[in-house]
Amino acid sequence: MGVRFAKGHGTENDFVVLPDPDGLLDVTERRVRAMCDRRRGLGADGVLRVVRAGKVADAPSAVDPDAWFMDYRNADGSVAEMCGNGVRVFAAYLVESGLAARGRLTVGTRAGVRPTVVHEDGSVTVEMGPTRVDGSSQATLDGFTFPGLAVDVGNPHLVCATELPVADLNLSSPPGYDRGLFPHGVNVEFVNPLDTETVRMRVYERGVGETRSCGTGTVAVVAATLNAVGERTGRRRVLVPGGAVDVAITESGSTLTGPAVIVARGELDDVWWRTADQD
Amino acid sequence: MGVRFAKGHGTENDFVVLPDPDGLLDVTERRVRAMCDRRRGLGADGVLRVVRAGKVADAPSAVDPDAWFMDYRNADGSVAEMCGNGVRVFAAYLVESGLAARGRLTVGTRAGVRPTVVHEDGSVTVEMGPTRVDGSSQATLDGFTFPGLAVDVGNPHLVCATELPVADLNLSSPPGYDRGLFPHGVNVEFVNPLDTETVRMRVYERGVGETRSCGTGTVAVVAATLNAVGERTGRRRVLVPGGAVDVAITESGSTLTGPAVIVARGELDDVWWRTADQD
Repeated sequence: MGVRFAKGHGTENDFVVLPDPDGLLDVTERRVRAMCDRRRGLGADGVLRVVRAGKVADAPSAVDPDAWFMDYRNADGSVAEMCGNGVRVFAAYLVESGLAARGRLTVGTRAGVRPTVVHEDGSVTVEMGPTRVDGSSQATLDGFTFPGLAVDVGNPHLVCATELPVADLNLSSPPGYDRGLFPHGVNVEFVNPLDTETVRMRVYERGVGETRSCGTGTVAVVAATLNAVGERTGRRRVLVPGGAVDVAITESGSTLTGPAVIVARGELDDVWWRTADQD
Repeated sequence: MGVRFAKGHGTENDFVVLPDPDGLLDVTERRVRAMCDRRRGLGADGVLRVVRAGKVADAPSAVDPDAWFMDYRNADGSVAEMCGNGVRVFAAYLVESGLAARGRLTVGTRAGVRPTVVHEDGSVTVEMGPTRVDGSSQATLDGFTFPGLAVDVGNPHLVCATELPVADLNLSSPPGYDRGLFPHGVNVEFVNPLDTETVRMRVYERGVGETRSCGTGTVAVVAATLNAVGERTGRRRVLVPGGAVDVAITESGSTLTGPAVIVARGELDDVWWRTADQD
């Protein structure tokens, strides 16, 4: 028997899911890079290992040891704390594979416990925590200057509403930003508010480039959109290149609701898995 | 039970393999595009359906109806005749899944019968047919002119040996070529002969862009390399971005020997397969 896997995506942010309840798999950096390689491997933006929190050395103590823990790895093999699109795929996988019941469930992550709800239609709601609007700044792109609002969602965002159709922007190179205000870089969102219910956005993720979707980015965009009309709470549908999600900002935090698709399930080839850990 | 698949690659030219001996699967253009989508699907350069030739309406009559037929589809859903890297993965799959014995076997394709040998080490030799050296021409790239040799391997190639390290070339845009000589376009190879046994190449495939590997391209490169030293037959190891293959040119034809890797096996999700045929 080879190593079991599933492949899934949330608004085209895609993942290899590795069920490993007892923490027995040797998921090395090399194997993560090999699995995520889009030609030599399965191909994905990251790996979600499904493991009991008690079996993960660096799981936060606030996470129940019996809870399912999302051990998230970036495609480059590095360990990451959280991924809003990843949690949806993770929760959908738990339900589809019978490891959890539909409805409310708790996912452990390195950023702490994330309450989620897997709905009847397969969509998933994730609690994304508090947002904080930090004030004005600006981005530059292709010689244009875009006024924006700095928003913190655990990570830094710069949300730039614009009347230029975002579909027409050239995001092949990184936007400029105030390096004094964002010493560790910033994720930059370009936004067209469409009506009182919907916004369209594109996102340039720091260190990555333009992506099809960014969970925390959609939350930042809705916080900024509400701020611009004098509201502290509310909800919007957010159209991203990879699909659509619904974000609600409340007094205490925020939620992100969106699709999660399981594409396939299978087993990695034994020889491939063994050699994937070699040069 | 979902639709079974395997994922594999030959020198990083990657494929979804769909076993369908009796030709029962409804492999529509939409489903091919969905499977090959690297974020919404499994991701691949193409699909190889494994089917008995007798079950394929457009199989050439020269192919035995009981032979295994490689029904090759491009990532855009279109039907294709042949793919040298694909045949290796196809043959490796037949052997690994018990559908054929290791050693000599015959693969049917829309370009006719392709004798192959699956070796003990897992590498595969494919007979690639005759080559024809058609004379001199030239390619342009980034303002430079590269003298080259036109070679036909069933499809047209322009092989440009150069002393510039091919690793340094910018292949992000298509090379220029003589549109009178190549009215239907041409695949352009840039080549550094390294020694009497080895050449390094990069390839720009017409209609696609730079690829990690091109089977017919490696054959064209060896035919041109031999021609340049006054030989009509011989062999070379060819280093491509996706790995290495061995090409032999004989009086009657040519062979391509290279690796074939099966990465994983599994089943596509039922709901995904059903919805993949919708808009």
